[in-house]
Amino acid sequence: MGARYNGAVMADPNFESRVRASFGRQRVMTTIGAELVSVAAGEVVIALPFRDDLTQQHGYLHAAIVTAIVDSACGYAASTLMPAEAAVLTVEYKVNFLGPAEGRRFVAHGKVLKPGRTLIVTTGEVVAETDAGTKSIATMLATMMTVTGRGIAG
Amino acid sequence: MGARYNGAVMADPNFESRVRASFGRQRVMTTIGAELVSVAAGEVVIALPFRDDLTQQHGYLHAAIVTAIVDSACGYAASTLMPAEAAVLTVEYKVNFLGPAEGRRFVAHGKVLKPGRTLIVTTGEVVAETDAGTKSIATMLATMMTVTGRGIAG
Amino acid sequence: MGARYNGAVMADPNFESRVRASFGRQRVMTTIGAELVSVAAGEVVIALPFRDDLTQQHGYLHAAIVTAIVDSACGYAASTLMPAEAAVLTVEYKVNFLGPAEGRRFVAHGKVLKPGRTLIVTTGEVVAETDAGTKSIATMLATMMTVTGRGIAG
Amino acid sequence: MGARYNGAVMADPNFESRVRASFGRQRVMTTIGAELVSVAAGEVVIALPFRDDLTQQHGYLHAAIVTAIVDSACGYAASTLMPAEAAVLTVEYKVNFLGPAEGRRFVAHGKVLKPGRTLIVTTGEVVAETDAGTKSIATMLATMMTVTGRGIAG
Repeated sequence: MGARYNGAVMADPNFESRVRASFGRQRVMTTIGAELVSVAAGEVVIALPFRDDLTQQHGYLHAAIVTAIVDSACGYAASTLMPAEAAVLTVEYKVNFLGPAEGRRFVAHGKVLKPGRTLIVTTGEVVAETDAGTKSIATMLATMMTVTGRGIAG
Repeated sequence: MGARYNGAVMADPNFESRVRASFGRQRVMTTIGAELVSVAAGEVVIALPFRDDLTQQHGYLHAAIVTAIVDSACGYAASTLMPAEAAVLTVEYKVNFLGPAEGRRFVAHGKVLKPGRTLIVTTGEVVAETDAGTKSIATMLATMMTVTGRGIAG
Repeated sequence: MGARYNGAVMADPNFESRVRASFGRQRVMTTIGAELVSVAAGEVVIALPFRDDLTQQHGYLHAAIVTAIVDSACGYAASTLMPAEAAVLTVEYKVNFLGPAEGRRFVAHGKVLKPGRTLIVTTGEVVAETDAGTKSIATMLATMMTVTGRGIAG
Repeated sequence: MGARYNGAVMADPNFESRVRASFGRQRVMTTIGAELVSVAAGEVVIALPFRDDLTQQHGYLHAAIVTAIVDSACGYAASTLMPAEAAVLTVEYKVNFLGPAEGRRFVAHGKVLKPGRTLIVTTGEVVAETDAGTKSIATMLATMMTVTGRGIAG
């Protein structure tokens, strides 16, 4: 039978080690200093400490760096539900920016909203950790695709 | 009177030097190796040579790096139409990825679709330059905002 | 002082009657048979019984009718937080369709995610009521705008 | 061999009659008074005369009715490139509203941007015809899906 997530069969019980290995191959994550915080069925968390060299013109984290961690969190959240031999592809995403990306550390939560055979709809949120507490700075709605048989995986 | 763009008065004749200076302060652009190719009224082009350390797990440029250059291109396209003392803010964007981000160089074109007093709607495209020619790999639809009086500009 | 919603001052204590009156003037809602179920601070619910003459080619409710009720729900959710003399405008929205729009009745929940002075970010969900239970068929992420001083309200 | 559109083989030479028949089964189009203006490979145009009973609270056409015609135009634009036995599904769309939907008649142009085997990315525009000329009032970026083997077509 296998485990299920929101009605979908979990195709790969070893999803965590597979996602962790794939994250390790996302060289841009190392470049920007992002770390994989947690991997659960349908939910992945990625964190990024603030860095001066990733900012836009006002000294905040650039919107696209905020997008980078939440895109990867959403993509890997989708990937946890895929077969071991499948690759995950970002079809499209939309992000609303809710406030300036200022803080010491940014945490992106990606979550599967609707698992489908071919397409997986995910939502993501990025929270900034500041001296005054945490605040939500971005929300993502993204469509991910399961790709098989193209000689790529992960 | 002043120049006009698509019916909107051009508020700042010196937009090009202002945009170039602001781009120089977007430290993430230096970090990833992006360069400002051209700045015209309502249209900005940014290019990025391929780099191994900006890739996702299959060796293509990460979707968020593709997003980074087209977000900045769209934001600065909007900025060209703004008053000198205004700052441009990305309200939200949507990106569709049209093919794998493989190539020697990636060129993002940002363009104003609809200039408004407060909100400016922009469209962007990213083209990959490969040995076999160029191909479109991403399309963006983004909402930018003119912000004044918050002590920030550019 | 006034009531607050998620950190924002509630500008109009009589928001419910104002929203109900405005909904009554949305003639398309009457045309398609939608009804305003509930109006709370930052949250509005609209329902629509299935009707054969609102379908697409496979007999399901047309995606844009699903969009109609959740757009109005999100717009009015934003409107509950606005001053009495302001008008709400849909800047843009994105909708993901999660399954076929089949059912006896469709219920759209609109909710404010981030209230701003000018822009209000909202999320919406549409649930289909079927003989077998309820299921989520669409999710919306939308940007609404507060417009004042243009001689329109509601 | 067959005809090609933007690199994709045209799978069904009789796409026009197929799309016209399917449009005839979209009962909501009859309900709102929309008409199919033209069907070409990868491009479909749908028009809608203004009607009082499709308005929002300020007397303009409701955003979702604007969305209805451009969603159908984009969906059928994608459908022209699909096999005869396939059905087209709207995966998701984003719409930016560029101005009030006022006018005598509204014309939606849907166009294929990127044809893929499973997913087809489309763009749409809605133009309002007024006494003072035409103006663009909405732009759409949408993902359509080719569905086969589920017992539905068109």
